[in-house]
Amino acid sequence: MRENRRIGRQTAEIKDVYIEASAAIVGEKEGDGPLANCFDIVLPDNEWNEKTWEKTESKMQREATRLAVAKANLNLEDVDRIFSGDLLNQCIGAGFGLRELNIPFLGIYGACSTMIEGLSLAAVMIDGGFAETAVAVTSSHFCTAERQYRNPLEYGGQRTPTAQWTVTGAGAAVLKKGDKNQNVKVTHITNGKIVDMGIKDQNNMGGAMAPAAYDTIKTHLKETGLSPGDYDLIVTGDLGKVGAEVVVDLLNQDVIDISRNYKDCGCMIYDIERQDVHAGGSGCGCVASVLCGHLINEMEKGKIKSMLVVGTGALLSPTSALQGESVPGIAHAVALRRV
Amino acid sequence: MRENRRIGRQTAEIKDVYIEASAAIVGEKEGDGPLANCFDIVLPDNEWNEKTWEKTESKMQREATRLAVAKANLNLEDVDRIFSGDLLNQCIGAGFGLRELNIPFLGIYGACSTMIEGLSLAAVMIDGGFAETAVAVTSSHFCTAERQYRNPLEYGGQRTPTAQWTVTGAGAAVLKKGDKNQNVKVTHITNGKIVDMGIKDQNNMGGAMAPAAYDTIKTHLKETGLSPGDYDLIVTGDLGKVGAEVVVDLLNQDVIDISRNYKDCGCMIYDIERQDVHAGGSGCGCVASVLCGHLINEMEKGKIKSMLVVGTGALLSPTSALQGESVPGIAHAVALRRV
Repeated sequence: MRENRRIGRQTAEIKDVYIEASAAIVGEKEGDGPLANCFDIVLPDNEWNEKTWEKTESKMQREATRLAVAKANLNLEDVDRIFSGDLLNQCIGAGFGLRELNIPFLGIYGACSTMIEGLSLAAVMIDGGFAETAVAVTSSHFCTAERQYRNPLEYGGQRTPTAQWTVTGAGAAVLKKGDKNQNVKVTHITNGKIVDMGIKDQNNMGGAMAPAAYDTIKTHLKETGLSPGDYDLIVTGDLGKVGAEVVVDLLNQDVIDISRNYKDCGCMIYDIERQDVHAGGSGCGCVASVLCGHLINEMEKGKIKSMLVVGTGALLSPTSALQGESVPGIAHAVALRRV
Repeated sequence: MRENRRIGRQTAEIKDVYIEASAAIVGEKEGDGPLANCFDIVLPDNEWNEKTWEKTESKMQREATRLAVAKANLNLEDVDRIFSGDLLNQCIGAGFGLRELNIPFLGIYGACSTMIEGLSLAAVMIDGGFAETAVAVTSSHFCTAERQYRNPLEYGGQRTPTAQWTVTGAGAAVLKKGDKNQNVKVTHITNGKIVDMGIKDQNNMGGAMAPAAYDTIKTHLKETGLSPGDYDLIVTGDLGKVGAEVVVDLLNQDVIDISRNYKDCGCMIYDIERQDVHAGGSGCGCVASVLCGHLINEMEKGKIKSMLVVGTGALLSPTSALQGESVPGIAHAVALRRV
């Protein structure tokens, strides 16, 4: 009676789940970048009429969710589950952002892989028949992240060349079982293992996360039997310039060439040189806003026919870093196809 | 081709998933309580040979997982997914605890409801055919929680009567599809909504979480058509004495009487008066260790035939409290039956 969807230890086939709609909200800096025209809302400033940046970030999650649900022609009551998390301690962006929406809530934490973890779980919940409609949403905010993970904003310290810029952004996607009007289908999910190569430099997150992305992409291709050329685009969440080079190199060592159809959202969202963001963008909101604002639209238009989205996260905390720990990485992947 | 398991917006039926084995590790104080004999390991001290309490907590998650997997006669490689989180910033108990196990990892954050959120998602993953075997695990540690959420341990401040004592404990459960040798079946999951009644007293978590437990229990009964008497035991995670009274009262107002078969893990794990824990135990590790050390064993022995376990979480952070926010609650439920 149970239909097998498992095609490998980490990968499962998704038979009948579609992205019904998506929405993205970003900050000023992201609204000044190359993808500016793709986003639903560009904030006028860092606060968006809230008293604290944490409240701003919560509002971004809430409004991105409302927008995506409205674009799907649904009401909030039609949503059976919402999967969300963020980088803030105890995921308060999600908890406070979504509390008034009255949607059954599943909090997740995958650092910057959270959006793709959420998409994978939402797809599972729907495809298995446990829910009809689910939302995956996440966010990050430069100001909340900077003061929680690094220094007070007023500190103005010098950044290293490998450092990345936390994206102020939120993205939400509404998933639903098939009803013949949708055209962006979820075909597979691959959940990653924690990979820790011992990197301790907190200013080189891309380098720390790249081995996890490598592991998940390699496993996905192996377990599905697909090759990189089967995708129009393989896109990672926020490896930035440094990490993106590492993942291509690591896969090359296994004679897997993704260089021709590979991009990283952290490199796409900013004009890296002009906007002075060092190695590129990062944060939960990076892949969330690029996927929900840009990539899904490109698929709907038919410009991208098949895509593997790989969310990448660094599972550290300021406490673990002070205790001398390295930076473990994680990467989750979701495959989408235009039908 | 997709079999419907959704029996309400928040509740789904689980058709073929069993708890194969479980294990629990607790601290000294919990090992001095009324459930002492149920736990697999009682720590000799707060450190367990680690240099920091955070590393101790990580070790507790790791060893609870190893033990549960061994008791299930499985190898770590047999586990397709592990769902885990904890109370520490960025869930480092899970991230660092589980990194060396090489199990596909899904980080979750439901505050003290994390264990039951994890069980619900593990059951979904297996029942939908996306995985064969999954583990849910979580932990809390009095010393890591106290210094992160409240004060340095050396501070020695007076505690209010409604305050709860964070359990030092970890619990892990291995879930598997049916193979005729198991006897504790997962029958339903109910995922909760965020419920915030405006309570701002961080020393009354039980009171803050009780409305969420009320909402989830009521919804579960409504969507399944069951009544409280259909369960031998309805058990909440960590409402403590204060919250436990509130949830019974709230349900009474709707003419739902759970008073005859209701318990709270936070009241069970300590001898409240003798051990001077004020309103009782709390923390992710509370329901995790009581469920995985005591309750599942009672079901295996046939002493409990049917049980609704309701994990309860408070979705606040020290930052949100300082910003004047109230304490939103969440509760997830899993129903188990002895077969």
